Amino acid sequence: MQDKQAEEEIRKIIDECDHLIQVEKFDELVNYYTEDATLVVKPGLEAHGREQIKSAFIKIAAYFDNSMKPVEGKMVYLSGGNVVLVLAQTFLEASEAAVKNSEFGMERRATYIFQKVGDHWLCAIDNSYGTSLLET
Amino acid sequence: MQDKQAEEEIRKIIDECDHLIQVEKFDELVNYYTEDATLVVKPGLEAHGREQIKSAFIKIAAYFDNSMKPVEGKMVYLSGGNVVLVLAQTFLEASEAAVKNSEFGMERRATYIFQKVGDHWLCAIDNSYGTSLLET
Repeated sequence: MQDKQAEEEIRKIIDECDHLIQVEKFDELVNYYTEDATLVVKPGLEAHGREQIKSAFIKIAAYFDNSMKPVEGKMVYLSGGNVVLVLAQTFLEASEAAVKNSEFGMERRATYIFQKVGDHWLCAIDNSYGTSLLET
Repeated sequence: MQDKQAEEEIRKIIDECDHLIQVEKFDELVNYYTEDATLVVKPGLEAHGREQIKSAFIKIAAYFDNSMKPVEGKMVYLSGGNVVLVLAQTFLEASEAAVKNSEFGMERRATYIFQKVGDHWLCAIDNSYGTSLLET
């Protein structure tokens, strides 16, 4: 990507969001999403807007035994002006029991869309399932 | 996706763009991209802005023996307000010789980002390689 500053800012936000998910501070977390953002909760189920996204994260955290820890691996940033597509290898860590019971893969190739709103980069689309949604 | 109208408008644009690529009308094609759009030409090589994208398409067309025909398969639309992520199974058809000589896969899982600019949906990021860029 050309715009290294944007990449660094977004990278920090992703790390901060991963931390907020781990410590379950979802009120703070949703401030990093646009007002009309979409979160793909699971294939076929989307949450729209901050309230729904917050509720979804509470349920996702419970599903993973309140032990969820997202960690990013390799990342690729593509910029289209005030819109950035982040491709990310994402590892979802959780308690042994939660991992065993999960019907979803714990290693994913995610697609995140960030949009510049005022001075801030916010997540507009959070799809941790990436192009694997085409399989469902 | 919630917004069916946006989905229909974008679907028409993608079909029109596929047609314009096939008939090599690249001046018309680039009007469907934002001013600062990014096209992933191949892993590690990006074109930025309409002029570069036009030049890239001329070279891509030559690479495929001027016989390139993109066809979309299954598609998934995710909306984040005035930004839409399209996940698409994309088939690249070309002459037998061109396919044989190509070092790239002809069946891809693409990620396209569309952005509403005024009344029009324009492509801001065109990445036909999808999350496979994480492998390179």
